[in-house]
Amino acid sequence: MKAVGVIVEYNPFHNGHAYHLQAAKETAHADLAVAVMSGNFLQRGEPALVSKWYRTKMALLCGVDIVLELPYQFATQKAETFANGAVSVLDAIGCHSLCFGSESGDISTFQQTVDYMDLHKDYLDEKIKMNIKTGVSFPKALSLSFQSMSSTENLLSLDKPNNILGFHYVKALKRQKSSIVPLTIKRKNANYHDEHFATETIASATSIRKALFTSKDNDTIEQYVPDTTSALLKEYLNEYGIFHEWENYWSFLRFRLLHSSPEELREIYDVEEGIENRLIAAALESSTFKEFMEKVKTKRYTWTRLQRICVHILTNTKKAEMSGTLEKASYLRLLGMTKRGKEYLNKNKSQFKLPLISKLSAYKENDISLDIKASRVYSFGLAQQYGNILLQQEFKQPPIFVQ
Amino acid sequence: MKAVGVIVEYNPFHNGHAYHLQAAKETAHADLAVAVMSGNFLQRGEPALVSKWYRTKMALLCGVDIVLELPYQFATQKAETFANGAVSVLDAIGCHSLCFGSESGDISTFQQTVDYMDLHKDYLDEKIKMNIKTGVSFPKALSLSFQSMSSTENLLSLDKPNNILGFHYVKALKRQKSSIVPLTIKRKNANYHDEHFATETIASATSIRKALFTSKDNDTIEQYVPDTTSALLKEYLNEYGIFHEWENYWSFLRFRLLHSSPEELREIYDVEEGIENRLIAAALESSTFKEFMEKVKTKRYTWTRLQRICVHILTNTKKAEMSGTLEKASYLRLLGMTKRGKEYLNKNKSQFKLPLISKLSAYKENDISLDIKASRVYSFGLAQQYGNILLQQEFKQPPIFVQ
Repeated sequence: MKAVGVIVEYNPFHNGHAYHLQAAKETAHADLAVAVMSGNFLQRGEPALVSKWYRTKMALLCGVDIVLELPYQFATQKAETFANGAVSVLDAIGCHSLCFGSESGDISTFQQTVDYMDLHKDYLDEKIKMNIKTGVSFPKALSLSFQSMSSTENLLSLDKPNNILGFHYVKALKRQKSSIVPLTIKRKNANYHDEHFATETIASATSIRKALFTSKDNDTIEQYVPDTTSALLKEYLNEYGIFHEWENYWSFLRFRLLHSSPEELREIYDVEEGIENRLIAAALESSTFKEFMEKVKTKRYTWTRLQRICVHILTNTKKAEMSGTLEKASYLRLLGMTKRGKEYLNKNKSQFKLPLISKLSAYKENDISLDIKASRVYSFGLAQQYGNILLQQEFKQPPIFVQ
Repeated sequence: MKAVGVIVEYNPFHNGHAYHLQAAKETAHADLAVAVMSGNFLQRGEPALVSKWYRTKMALLCGVDIVLELPYQFATQKAETFANGAVSVLDAIGCHSLCFGSESGDISTFQQTVDYMDLHKDYLDEKIKMNIKTGVSFPKALSLSFQSMSSTENLLSLDKPNNILGFHYVKALKRQKSSIVPLTIKRKNANYHDEHFATETIASATSIRKALFTSKDNDTIEQYVPDTTSALLKEYLNEYGIFHEWENYWSFLRFRLLHSSPEELREIYDVEEGIENRLIAAALESSTFKEFMEKVKTKRYTWTRLQRICVHILTNTKKAEMSGTLEKASYLRLLGMTKRGKEYLNKNKSQFKLPLISKLSAYKENDISLDIKASRVYSFGLAQQYGNILLQQEFKQPPIFVQ
C-alpha cells in the first residue's frame, strides 16, 4: 500500500483542504493519505479552534486515512523546526511521498533551491546576520538575503508563506536522508493569510475562523467547508460552549507573567533579548490579549513569533526541555484512522521507525510530557466542567475510528 | 508620645478588635496605638476579605493611629516567623509596649514559659522530633511535647491559638533583644476559630466572614462590627463586586499546578516531602478549591499549612527568595495614619530603625518585591477592570489619612 503524507493543521478542515487531499492522492498514485497534524497549539502560536479529536474526525470524514499528532515541540515553531518534526513523523510511518501546496507548484525548483543554498550556506548565513542587525525579523532577513544573491538558476521565491514551508520540508527530507519523494501542487485561489473569502467555495482557514468568531453561528461558512466540518463545528459549540481563541487564555497568560520574575521568564523557550520585560510591562497595562500584543509588537518580533512565545509561557515550556529534541520526533501519536488506515497500520507496523502510541494511558508519560502539558493548558480555554472532558480524553480516548 | 503596638489582621475589623484596642491603650497607658497588619494574604493562608486599604481605613476610624503592613514573608507563615516579622516592625518604629489578647491573660506566664523552654530546648526539640515521626503536625507535636514535660512552674497552656501566638511574640522580643514591654489581655467570649456568633455584640472574624459569604449582604453582621466597618464593607462590594475568597483564585492555582513540573513546585517555599505530587493529582480531579483541599488534607498537613503552601504557589514565592529574610523585617510600609499618628511619625522618624515607605513608587522595587507580587496576585481575585484599580493603588496610593 502506497501512502502519501500531508502536513496539516485543519483549523478547521475546509474545501481547499479537500481539494489538496484529492490532488495529493492522485499526484502520488497513493492508496491512502497520512496526515501529520498539529495538536492543541498551532504553528502561528494560537490555540486550535476545536480539539484535535474533532479536527481528526473532520479529516477522516474527508479523505485522510491516518492522523498523527505533530508533537508540541515541533507544532508551535518556526518553519524549519516545524518541518523537521513533520517530515520525521511521515518518514517513520513509511510514507512513500509527501505532497504539499505551494505558490510555485514546481518541485524541481524546491530541490534546486535547497541544493543552491547548501552550496552557498556560509555566504547566506553572513548575509542573514547582517540583515538581522538592521532590526528585521528572521523570515524577512532570509528573504532579503536570498533575493540579493545573483544566480542564473531557477530559484524559488521565498517571500511566499507556502513556498517557505515547502522549502523547509524538502530541506528536512534531505537532512534526514529520507527516501520520501517530495511532490507539490500549485495553490489556487486562497492565500494562506487571506482574511476575506476568495471564491465561492474556497476560502482560507483564517477567513473561516474570522467569520466563525464574528457571526457566532456557522451558517456564513457553510459554502466553504464540507458538511461534515460544519456539523462538527456546531457539535463542538453545543458540547463545549465556545471555540478556542487567545482571549480565553488571556487571564492565565497575564497571571503567569505577573507572578513571574524576568529571570524566570528567560528560562522559557524562545524568550530572549529582554523581551520578558516588555511582556511583563504590557501585561500590567492591557485588558485583552489583542491590546497586549499590540503593545509588545516590534519590527524585530513578528506577531507570529510573539504568539509562539506566549504559548510557551502559557505551557511553561523551558529552554532546557526543548534542547536536543528539535531534530526529529521520538514517537508517533495516533489520533485516528479509517478502515483503510487501520489496514495499513496492521500491515506495516513492524517496520515503523518510532513507537506508535494509540492510547496515552498505556505509554510512559515522561517521553510525551510536553504534549500532556499542552493538553492541560488547552483545557483552560473552556469553563472547567468542559475542560475536564478534554483532560480525560487526552488519557483515555482511543484513536478515532471511521469506517 | 508613648505608643502601644498591636499585631492584627482585621479581616474585617469588628467589635472584639475595638474592645482589645481600647483595653490595650489603657493597659499600656499609651498615647497612641500602632498596628502591624497583614496585607493581601493572611496567616491562615487566605486572601484578605477586602483590600489592605479598606482594612486600614476600618482601623484608623476605630482607634488605631498608625497602620504598617506586615511584609508578605512574615504574614503567611507559622506563628514563629509571623511573630519575628511583626515584633521587628513594632520595635523598629519605637513602640513602648506590645499588647496581645490571649486565653491565659497573665503575661508572667508567657515569660516564664519562654524562659523555661529556652532552658530545656534540647530536650524539647528531641521530643518534638519524636512526635512528628508519629505523623502529627508541628503545632500538635509542640503541644504534646510540652505537655509531657513535668514542671512545678506555672506554664502556659499551648493548645490555645492565641496563647501560641503570644508565646511567640514574647519569644521574638527576647530573641531580638527588644526593649518593648509585652502586655496581655484575657480574651473574652469569642474564640479565634469560632464559626458561630458567641454573644450579642462580639463575634469572631471567622463567623463574620462566614455570614458575609452566606447571606450575600451584611445586615446579619451589623451588630458585631462598628458602623464604619459595615459601611466600608458595603462600599467594597459596590466598588469591586465581590469579597475575596479562595474560590476566586482557584482557577489560577489550578493552572499553576497543572502547567508546572513537580521539580518546579519543589522550589516553592514550604513545598516538601512529595506534597507537590499530591497537589497536582488533586488539582486534576477537583472542581473547587474546597474539594481540592479535602483531597490533599492529611493528618500531617494541617488545613492552614496547606493553604499557606497554596498561597506561596499562587504568588510563586521560591525557597531561595525567602531564605535569609525571615528573622526581621527590612522596611516599614506605612498604609495609613491619623493626625496623632502623623504627629508621632514626624517627631520620631529620625530614630526609626528601618526605612519608612510612604509611597511605593518612591522606593526601590527589589527590596519589596514579594509584597508587590502578592498585590498583583491578589488583584486576580477580582474581574480585571477592578483588579486593575488595586494594581494601580499599590504603586500610587499615598497612606490613608484620617483626621
